[in-house]
Amino acid sequence: MRNRLTPDQYANGILAGDRFLLSRAITLIESRRPDDQQLAQQVLTAVLTQTNNSPAKPSLRIGITGVPGVGKSTFIETLGKYLTSQGHQLAVLAVDPTSQRSGGSLLGDKTRMETLSLDPKAYIRPSPAGESLGGVAHRTRETMLLCEAAGFDIVLIETVGVGQSETVVHGMVDFFLLLMLAGAGDELQGMKRGIMELADMLAITKADGVNTAAAQRAQVDYQNALHLFPPTGTGWFPPVLTCSALTGTGIDDLWRAILDHQRLTTASGHHKQRRQEQQLAWFRALLQQTLDHRFYAQSGIRERLTTIEAQVRAGTLLPGSAVRELLG
Amino acid sequence: MRNRLTPDQYANGILAGDRFLLSRAITLIESRRPDDQQLAQQVLTAVLTQTNNSPAKPSLRIGITGVPGVGKSTFIETLGKYLTSQGHQLAVLAVDPTSQRSGGSLLGDKTRMETLSLDPKAYIRPSPAGESLGGVAHRTRETMLLCEAAGFDIVLIETVGVGQSETVVHGMVDFFLLLMLAGAGDELQGMKRGIMELADMLAITKADGVNTAAAQRAQVDYQNALHLFPPTGTGWFPPVLTCSALTGTGIDDLWRAILDHQRLTTASGHHKQRRQEQQLAWFRALLQQTLDHRFYAQSGIRERLTTIEAQVRAGTLLPGSAVRELLG
Repeated sequence: MRNRLTPDQYANGILAGDRFLLSRAITLIESRRPDDQQLAQQVLTAVLTQTNNSPAKPSLRIGITGVPGVGKSTFIETLGKYLTSQGHQLAVLAVDPTSQRSGGSLLGDKTRMETLSLDPKAYIRPSPAGESLGGVAHRTRETMLLCEAAGFDIVLIETVGVGQSETVVHGMVDFFLLLMLAGAGDELQGMKRGIMELADMLAITKADGVNTAAAQRAQVDYQNALHLFPPTGTGWFPPVLTCSALTGTGIDDLWRAILDHQRLTTASGHHKQRRQEQQLAWFRALLQQTLDHRFYAQSGIRERLTTIEAQVRAGTLLPGSAVRELLG
Repeated sequence: MRNRLTPDQYANGILAGDRFLLSRAITLIESRRPDDQQLAQQVLTAVLTQTNNSPAKPSLRIGITGVPGVGKSTFIETLGKYLTSQGHQLAVLAVDPTSQRSGGSLLGDKTRMETLSLDPKAYIRPSPAGESLGGVAHRTRETMLLCEAAGFDIVLIETVGVGQSETVVHGMVDFFLLLMLAGAGDELQGMKRGIMELADMLAITKADGVNTAAAQRAQVDYQNALHLFPPTGTGWFPPVLTCSALTGTGIDDLWRAILDHQRLTTASGHHKQRRQEQQLAWFRALLQQTLDHRFYAQSGIRERLTTIEAQVRAGTLLPGSAVRELLG
């Protein structure tokens, strides 16, 4: 039986940077128990009230994606150490609803970030397992708010670039970074189409040793390709950089480019606008999820849906008639 | 007062290719009157029952998009005349929820397709005005089914490439064609990011006269760029072609490439799979819309939402708390 604290005890501890209380509060966020969830909301509200009165230093939220094999974890470890060495407080979260089946687990495998996980300025939290993407996204957003309140000024959110999760992560960050391997062959297999046009930057990883020349060629090719994309609407032109997590080459250039983006979008108001739109989209998605849950919780509805969807898929039942049949 | 026919009278007329009854049935689909809607569903069901028993020749559904100024209507007129000259029966529909505000009306301006609109093998139907995108999409899908039952073996669905509608059109066609202008400057302004990666083909329009060389350069540039995209998963590599609606150059090559795509995806089963997935997605979207309508029809809910969304956007109310406040 855990010792339950009051919402204010949690909130004050988190705002004072207490990692133990932060972790416990995140566990409440991830819990499915109604009493835990209620307490989590109270903690979040208490934290929000205080941060609205005296805002912490502005945070920077960065989404990082790329197919398995691109070297996400070593990249995050190298970038993370660079950032903490510059005095930043870094939180690393993951949105990974597929870890159960893909086998390519993200932060769940803590040993992958050995050095960073020992860094006192870094806080690594794996994705809650066994949940829907919508559920993971909601909890990750709440976790991010707590991390920011606890003084982490940079939040990295990792995801794999093979499903729907990267679109979700794009919707919760200020900057979306796509890691790519040199060449355009097999390593693009499984990457979701459309993702390149979401990226605020492409970084060609593993640009070291014999790979250096290929990485530089890929950089030129992708930069030419990106010029043909529709503009972002913010005046930002997504750059293509090369880097090596092994040698550290290019990490500082990459970071400077991210800061350039922040300066540009903060000055123009796009940064604020993006966050406000994300906040609203989060609310609408959550409202939708909640309404859906109520609907699907009705007795027998899933069985009827299975039957109806088979007919719709086969083309023997019109969607309009199917909806009437289900709801009528 | 209209003379009301029975569902079977409509269905038999449509299956016999009666355009007058087809148009009247589409008007029923577009009507908001409950009795019209009920009759429309009965007509659709009657048609579907007969086409499932004795399928008509397979249809080909092609989505066409591009920013205003790319020459969509002259392109469709030229391609349309080419197709009817080959013996095809062609229906042209539009998904255009924004015509009210954008001023760039689609098929509403019938005079834009003067020759095609007089062609007895062509049937042009503008988009129903003043509806939500979800509503337009649903009605366009039902209209498409009726057109196919009436013997139109090719359906072109036009939309503007500047909003959300092109994603919706992509979800209801076998082949998605993106029209582009040569160069990558101002003419890309307003085009939605992500759309290039949805395209099954890019066609550079207005490749005639002094524009020919620029169009050919653009073709090479875009083809190089598309090679860097993640693969489509079907073995199809979206080609980039040039064409001129003015001279007719390139229209036959473009059509041959579309047929190649059909052959490839039909043989592999991807064609059937894509349609089945689209049917299912249509049903789910419609179910969602219907549930949403019920929710928003509650008294006072819109006013409460407006208040709550302002707080969410400002960051003073957490989405989780907002949902509980709204539904609790």
